[in-house]
Amino acid sequence: MSNQKLFNVAVVGATGAVGEQIIRLLEARNFPIKELKLLSSARSAGVKIAFKGQEVVVQEATPESFEGVDLALFSAGGDVTRALAPHAVEAGTICIDNTSAYRMDPDTPLVVPEVNVEKINEHKGIIANPNCSTIQMVAALKPLYDRYGISRIIVSTYQAVSGAGAKAINEMLRQSKEVLAGNEANPAILPVGSLPVKHQIAFNAIPQIDKFLDNGFTNEEMKMILETKKIMGDESIEVTATCVRIPVVYGHSESVYVELKNDFDIDEVKDLLANAPGIVLVDNPSEQLYPLATDAAGKLETFVGRVRRDLSNPKALNLWIVSDNLLKGAAWNAVQIAEYIAIEQQ
Amino acid sequence: MSNQKLFNVAVVGATGAVGEQIIRLLEARNFPIKELKLLSSARSAGVKIAFKGQEVVVQEATPESFEGVDLALFSAGGDVTRALAPHAVEAGTICIDNTSAYRMDPDTPLVVPEVNVEKINEHKGIIANPNCSTIQMVAALKPLYDRYGISRIIVSTYQAVSGAGAKAINEMLRQSKEVLAGNEANPAILPVGSLPVKHQIAFNAIPQIDKFLDNGFTNEEMKMILETKKIMGDESIEVTATCVRIPVVYGHSESVYVELKNDFDIDEVKDLLANAPGIVLVDNPSEQLYPLATDAAGKLETFVGRVRRDLSNPKALNLWIVSDNLLKGAAWNAVQIAEYIAIEQQ
Repeated sequence: MSNQKLFNVAVVGATGAVGEQIIRLLEARNFPIKELKLLSSARSAGVKIAFKGQEVVVQEATPESFEGVDLALFSAGGDVTRALAPHAVEAGTICIDNTSAYRMDPDTPLVVPEVNVEKINEHKGIIANPNCSTIQMVAALKPLYDRYGISRIIVSTYQAVSGAGAKAINEMLRQSKEVLAGNEANPAILPVGSLPVKHQIAFNAIPQIDKFLDNGFTNEEMKMILETKKIMGDESIEVTATCVRIPVVYGHSESVYVELKNDFDIDEVKDLLANAPGIVLVDNPSEQLYPLATDAAGKLETFVGRVRRDLSNPKALNLWIVSDNLLKGAAWNAVQIAEYIAIEQQ
Repeated sequence: MSNQKLFNVAVVGATGAVGEQIIRLLEARNFPIKELKLLSSARSAGVKIAFKGQEVVVQEATPESFEGVDLALFSAGGDVTRALAPHAVEAGTICIDNTSAYRMDPDTPLVVPEVNVEKINEHKGIIANPNCSTIQMVAALKPLYDRYGISRIIVSTYQAVSGAGAKAINEMLRQSKEVLAGNEANPAILPVGSLPVKHQIAFNAIPQIDKFLDNGFTNEEMKMILETKKIMGDESIEVTATCVRIPVVYGHSESVYVELKNDFDIDEVKDLLANAPGIVLVDNPSEQLYPLATDAAGKLETFVGRVRRDLSNPKALNLWIVSDNLLKGAAWNAVQIAEYIAIEQQ
């Protein structure tokens, strides 16, 4: 379109694992960009990143970085968002924030486009992107919620190391090589970089993602519990989560038990999932077909399989939900929100 | 004891992953053995295995192998048990069977010593050792069942490749090296050796262990559901299971949600677990202490942590249960049963 409105877009955290995916998606989706501003900490400033055949020099993010910026996508940690997003909002920039900083703020919409795209219009400058594990779960459950209602969700996650950033990927690969060579793993990053105790992730499963709260749950688990209610717009949904890191690079998997309010037909459930936006049903036990993290890596969709009626509770379903945590779980969900805003403003 | 009764013991499947652990445990526990007979398929016959400083030559297992054998520990697959155990019983041998062949047979006790040791005395020649995932779960839940009652269990597993045998371990290590070197994984064994479709296990999570049934559950999941009721001796316990293979060598981990019948105090729950036989409570979030597969590998106990009251259901608990699947999950549980029989016969 020759008269298409073009946007000045900033990516804050441009050199991180999610920032990199955001830049690739803006390019691949041909997002209507006038100028792309890549921002980072002082440490990474000066790095050059290719975008549409040109090199963009990464600049240090400061409170003054947002003059003339229409849209900023933040993924540089909660502290950076808290420090800079208010300045961006003041400069008139719409911020799409991938951190947890504003997710539970009552004035900030928390958006998964397949679930509550209409909430974008209620923003006051900031739109929050939910936690990766939450996004794929609510995207898959939304068609079932709309049709049957949901009373309870019990989820156990199998989360990829990329959710903890590029350093955690390198750490897991390094440890794997060491252990295969018969050496010690010498853990240095996971489960939480800022906490004193480190555990081996290679050939292991760590039942801790993020810090513990006094109630014995981790922050990651509480995000799944609280964000699910906010995104679904239904505080009555009971959610229990156990979040576990496993040695996978890309793609979170989830074992989900969900109690529906109304009776369901299992074939109708599969039809609803097969036809839901952003969802791919991969479910054929006789051909050993179900979603796998290695298949979901690099894809934008959320994959659902192992769909079966619970044997002990006829109103409950069991599901296996897999998606690329850096894409639908982060960068792609943020770019979807940006695309919605761009279309609204045409 | 100079007058200690000594037993002629046979190990069927002596060259397998579990058989090897059984032999090591019989040695380490100084089991009262007169003669140790190591049996296998014709293919492995002739292999020599060290036992108490001597070399024992593995012989081919035949219907005639059990003359004069007091106790036989079977772990060579269900078909071998079905073919040979009846002959052993006829010869007067007490069989402890690690396969699924007789587990759900109403005449065969299914025993986890910490839960229902008294059932051993009801045997009619065969005592079944439960599925590995089931053993560690019921061992951990027994003290809670006795004190509060259990109405419902929802479990998602994180199972080690050693549960699929030595070939699966080699396969996972080989694939890991290939993927780290940038090559294809070329899966050849998992999820189920006898089925046509193979999936990559290195850096992946496969939601299939054993074959699928028409109800959409796998055999492994149905084992957890049915065996739990039989071992606990309570058909009213509702169980849901999702069984997943992850790239861990030794040690199954389980995320368990359990609804208790009566109110509980969380500190009392921890005390019960800390004092239960065969259970080690590893639960200190402030020090990032919880069970890990890498810590459980090589140990006989079942480790329990992440003990927390559910936020949505005050009568429910969440737990993380880990044990070495080849030891408590197989060889050690079988040797515990053998030790009970040996003590009873003194």
